[in-house]
Parts: sequence; structure tokens; C-alpha cells
Amino acid sequence: MTVKAERTVSEKTVFRGRALRLDVIEIETASGGRSVREVVRHPGAAVILARRPDGMFILVRQYRKAIESELLEAVAGTLEPGEAPEACARRELAEETGHLAGRLVALGTAFPAPGYTQEELHFFLADGAEPAGAATPDADEALETETVSGEDLARMIREGAIRDAKTIVAWHLYREHAAGALAGDGRK
Amino acid sequence: MTVKAERTVSEKTVFRGRALRLDVIEIETASGGRSVREVVRHPGAAVILARRPDGMFILVRQYRKAIESELLEAVAGTLEPGEAPEACARRELAEETGHLAGRLVALGTAFPAPGYTQEELHFFLADGAEPAGAATPDADEALETETVSGEDLARMIREGAIRDAKTIVAWHLYREHAAGALAGDGRK
Repeated sequence: MTVKAERTVSEKTVFRGRALRLDVIEIETASGGRSVREVVRHPGAAVILARRPDGMFILVRQYRKAIESELLEAVAGTLEPGEAPEACARRELAEETGHLAGRLVALGTAFPAPGYTQEELHFFLADGAEPAGAATPDADEALETETVSGEDLARMIREGAIRDAKTIVAWHLYREHAAGALAGDGRK
Repeated sequence: MTVKAERTVSEKTVFRGRALRLDVIEIETASGGRSVREVVRHPGAAVILARRPDGMFILVRQYRKAIESELLEAVAGTLEPGEAPEACARRELAEETGHLAGRLVALGTAFPAPGYTQEELHFFLADGAEPAGAATPDADEALETETVSGEDLARMIREGAIRDAKTIVAWHLYREHAAGALAGDGRK
């Protein structure tokens, strides 16, 4: 099935900040009426589930002002202009944790909040990630690296200790990838 | 481990629209410097994975202007002022699909994009959802209901046919819930 696209009647940028741009778009709805969509413009991001050679996963804990709380998350970062998602994944893993990615496996893409943001997430497994120097996060970022087993990661999602949606999606896609690899991808 | 909170130095609202409010917050960073966080204010939302008595799941397909594409998603909607997540879940399921929720099971909460939005998602399984009348979506929403088996839903996530993060999280939390119920929750 398909649904009718919402045609743009007019569009204006109402805010242009450091990380976000906000556009207000007047649309023609499927039924021919007029309405408005408020859309956060975003270049997209890479999300990296990093697994060390010993099988442990590398996560980062950081304070999230938007929710006034800290969260334990997979490594992630915004694409720079013209940057490929794979390159972004390697760069962010190095910057945030000081690890080299090893083998990158694309796990898929998803939209975190398609009701109001353009952002697309590109998910990767960084298989065999190894320490290669000091982390060099942005000056205004305070990140702490935490290393957890797959069993603990799954349990933390189950028990609500991990509540970052992209981290849960990364874990789900990784588990599906791992199950498919075991099955020789014959499942598809 | 914990990370230091980012103290608010000043805060101003730069946009107040129909669905979104955007605030710019000057903060004191963990290292004592100053920086800025741009935050979308949002009242939160309920996400409902609806399962009919015959085990089929009810999803909705809709056009998402922010990504100029249609997506197949779990039913979801924004909390009204003072509305409890459970009440929102029942209301949105009725409005978007015309189904009564049956038994609501809380599956957990998560943040779709904590880097820049306050939005918190409240996930529910609506177990035994049954048709109870016509859907009454908002005048500017064009939704199509689709019914899929659990096997197909899992496959569509695996193959990238479902790329909405909240739907993938809902499915993951539901699967964990179902596995826990089978194991008598002894796994925890």
C-alpha cells in the first residue's frame, strides 16, 4: 500500500542554530487541505555498536541536557558535510572512546523521530574495536566509557537501565545480524 | 558511574509552533566552560504495539514530511496536557485505527533523540485489540492500517522495510516481554 505524499506549498526557516535548523513547511494534505509541518533539519548520524576482540561492548555515558539526565548509549555522532556514514562511524568511535573500529558491518538505517526530524541513523557494528590512543571528545562533551558484556547489555535494556532508543535499535539489529550470520543468512 | 550535570546558565524560547517549541539553553559544561544546547520541548508520546486476539499486529502507514517518505510504524501519539501515558495509548489506538486496546501492558520507556529533544516514549502492548468503530484521525493525517504477523514484522525490521526507530524498539521490548512471560520472569 502507499499513501499520498504531502506536497510543499511553501517553506521557511524559522531558526538556525549551532546544531539544529528548524523549518516550517506549509503542505497540501492527502485530502487536499492545507496544514503545517515543523521539521528539524539534520544531516544524519552514525551509531556504532563497538565490540572488542574479547566480545565486550563499548558504550558511553553522558549527560543529556534535553532530558536533564545521564544516559548510557552506543557511540554516535553527526555526519559532517559530505562525510560518508562509515567514515563518520570510524571518526566518532576514535574521538569518543579512543578505539579503532576494526571491521565495520552495516546493520541498517532508521529514523529516530520521523514525525518532526529529518535525522536518519546509520547503524554499524565495529567488530574487533581496539584501543589506539586517548579519546578526544568535543570540548563541551563529558563522556565516560563503559564496557559491558552482551548479556549485561541485553539485561540493561530489559530492565530499563538503557533507555536510549538508538542503542536499543543498534542492539536489536546486531542480534538479528548475529543470528543471520549463524544461520548463514539462509533465513532471508 | 555518573557524569556531572550541565547547569543551566540561561534559557530562552526561540520558536513556539503548532507541535514543537525550541529552547536555546546556555550551560556550564562539566569542565566549567560555557556552551549551548538547542532543545526541542515535547510533552512525550505513547507507542502502542497492538496485537489482535488472532495474534496479528496492527501497524499504520503514513507519509512523513520530515523525511519525504512513507513509513510503516506502530501506532503512536503525543500526550495531551495532563494525560497519563496509558490513557494516551488507548485514545491514539482508537483514533488511528478504530480499535479498543484490550489489556495494556507497559513495556518500558525510551528517549528517541536525547541529543536534542526532551521527548520520552512510553511503550505499550495492547493485547487483544479489537475493532470497535471507525478510525478518526486528525483532519490533516492520512493513515492506512496494515495487519502483519509477528514473523513478518520481525522480517521487515531485519530487511529494512520497517525503519522507524520507535517501532523497532517496541518490537524488541515486546519480544523481551514475551520471552520473560514464557520463562515466568525467572530470567530477571
